[in-house]
Amino acid sequence: MRVAVIGVGLIGGSLGLAARACGHEVRGVGRDPERLAKARELGAIDLAAGSLEEALAGAEACFCCAPVGALSGQVAAALEAAGRDCVVSDVGSVKGEIVATARDERFVGGHPLAGAETAGVEHARRDLFAGATWYLTPTERTSGVLYERLHRLLHELGARPAAIDVGRHDRMMATVSHLPHVLANVLAAQAAGSLGGEDGGEPLPATGPSFRDATRVAGANSAIWTDIYLSNRAALIEQLDETARRLEAVRAALAAGSESDLRAWNEDARAARQRVLDGALVGDEVHELRISVTNEPGVVARLALELGRAGINIADMALYPAADMRDGVVAVWVAGEEPARRAQELVGALGHPVARP
Amino acid sequence: MRVAVIGVGLIGGSLGLAARACGHEVRGVGRDPERLAKARELGAIDLAAGSLEEALAGAEACFCCAPVGALSGQVAAALEAAGRDCVVSDVGSVKGEIVATARDERFVGGHPLAGAETAGVEHARRDLFAGATWYLTPTERTSGVLYERLHRLLHELGARPAAIDVGRHDRMMATVSHLPHVLANVLAAQAAGSLGGEDGGEPLPATGPSFRDATRVAGANSAIWTDIYLSNRAALIEQLDETARRLEAVRAALAAGSESDLRAWNEDARAARQRVLDGALVGDEVHELRISVTNEPGVVARLALELGRAGINIADMALYPAADMRDGVVAVWVAGEEPARRAQELVGALGHPVARP
Repeated sequence: MRVAVIGVGLIGGSLGLAARACGHEVRGVGRDPERLAKARELGAIDLAAGSLEEALAGAEACFCCAPVGALSGQVAAALEAAGRDCVVSDVGSVKGEIVATARDERFVGGHPLAGAETAGVEHARRDLFAGATWYLTPTERTSGVLYERLHRLLHELGARPAAIDVGRHDRMMATVSHLPHVLANVLAAQAAGSLGGEDGGEPLPATGPSFRDATRVAGANSAIWTDIYLSNRAALIEQLDETARRLEAVRAALAAGSESDLRAWNEDARAARQRVLDGALVGDEVHELRISVTNEPGVVARLALELGRAGINIADMALYPAADMRDGVVAVWVAGEEPARRAQELVGALGHPVARP
Repeated sequence: MRVAVIGVGLIGGSLGLAARACGHEVRGVGRDPERLAKARELGAIDLAAGSLEEALAGAEACFCCAPVGALSGQVAAALEAAGRDCVVSDVGSVKGEIVATARDERFVGGHPLAGAETAGVEHARRDLFAGATWYLTPTERTSGVLYERLHRLLHELGARPAAIDVGRHDRMMATVSHLPHVLANVLAAQAAGSLGGEDGGEPLPATGPSFRDATRVAGANSAIWTDIYLSNRAALIEQLDETARRLEAVRAALAAGSESDLRAWNEDARAARQRVLDGALVGDEVHELRISVTNEPGVVARLALELGRAGINIADMALYPAADMRDGVVAVWVAGEEPARRAQELVGALGHPVARP
């Protein structure tokens, strides 16, 4: 398959390395010719294209890797230049705006839960996405054939594609990523302020490991993060308000000196963290389901979202359209016997005949 | 030297292992005979004492290792049972209450910045304190001879003893440790609540590494942490109020969609974190200062605190009293040429003749 990568930095470069390792041809394009030459030199792309058109000529998949703030323009240009049979995706960590803008059956919003504190193609790694969840936000408009192709490609690259509703994605990212970044920033600034200020320029004392860990992401790349905060500000503001309420409750328990309240609150936090981290686990054994579908718009997206919503991970997926393209079979592979059983039930309830070969 | 350890868990056990490795004799005592036998078996203590008196007989140093909430009683009992020439210290992470209670020239509050997410003597390690800052909170009342002995012993165990004002210690711990624990708890509970709740029991989606790191300390051992929160609640409430103000400011910048404010705030956070973490660095070369002192109460504590306040780390320390015990020399070793020069200046300004051999 020919794959186009627009913007060859850490993510685009790693995509290129992984895709080339799977035998795909990768064409890269970007604003900076030197960076593009570097990507070619490092083996992240086969060809440094001189234009978007050249990169997209004959491509079956295209990844837009601009920072969040520049994505809408990049995706629009890619859709304009891409052929009718090319799936166009992106790797932005906020999805609402881009999904609302790119109203095209060829577009599927994407977001790999991978990255590093480094940036630039020189830090790209072929295994950056190995085992990483890669969220996809298909809509009713999304072409089933193109969605399946993207899903299979990501799976081939070692990632775990998982469909998720776009609103839920952004609320979730506000909670588990953007809010932790805000808190890390606040904590770092507050520590420097309250430790350094009080005696007028006194050197700061040694701190323990919890401060270092809690502020690991403080002051992350400003160019990237300013965009992210702004793009997802509605969801983030909601989360900040919730945090303020929770801090107020802790303050009240402290002021009251209530040992039992503090203990219960602390125990709840431990259980909550475990619950959230356990959510990311998947089983090991993979089971196949064969789902008969009529060839209507959005059917594959609906299936993927329904299973994603139930926490069922689609390890792999294949489309087998019947000769007349009016109906066909979607095969999905699900990890774990219990999730497979639930998937069968859910899909059956949607009115699709489903078999387990 | 004979060392008594009261409460042989992770910290007490590690202390015992380190002290025995340096050739000291360690007597352990505690409420649970099985745990004490285990400590003996693991080589953390030479003798499992049957009583506080037996543990302290002939001891020159004693460490109280109870949880923060039980420390006052334990330290009082240790001071009662200890000889006149025994330095008594503790390892609690909040110091205000214990220092206010244990008004005895033999007592020096202590707090090693070491620990682990595990508890119990079976996780004790001889090198737990290697290179770790070990805060000491001497007061005007503290015996210089006993302070110096404790300082030398901790240095011998591989730690970096550093004197700090007790109030400053507790405010600092509220900022760099207790507040991060509160935020981790709030974040974990909020994530579980807002992700799990909305669609009625829907499984939680996969999260990225920033959530995992930001909540690493969520729900830390309730028995220990409920005590810590309560013991330091005044300082912690101040920090929570400051956090609320800072979150409100971020919220305002988000609501206004102010890219420049968000960018500046993010850049400041990066610089702040670096400043705090750099505070923990010390030079490598060690310089000796010989300070002449008259033998008055509190003089060693004053010197140690003065240098600690200026961010000067005392790598090692020795007392050489003159024959009549009326005056003498305190030798301190300071890491780094520039800190040594500043130390000489500061000590000179306090009115003590100081020489660099």
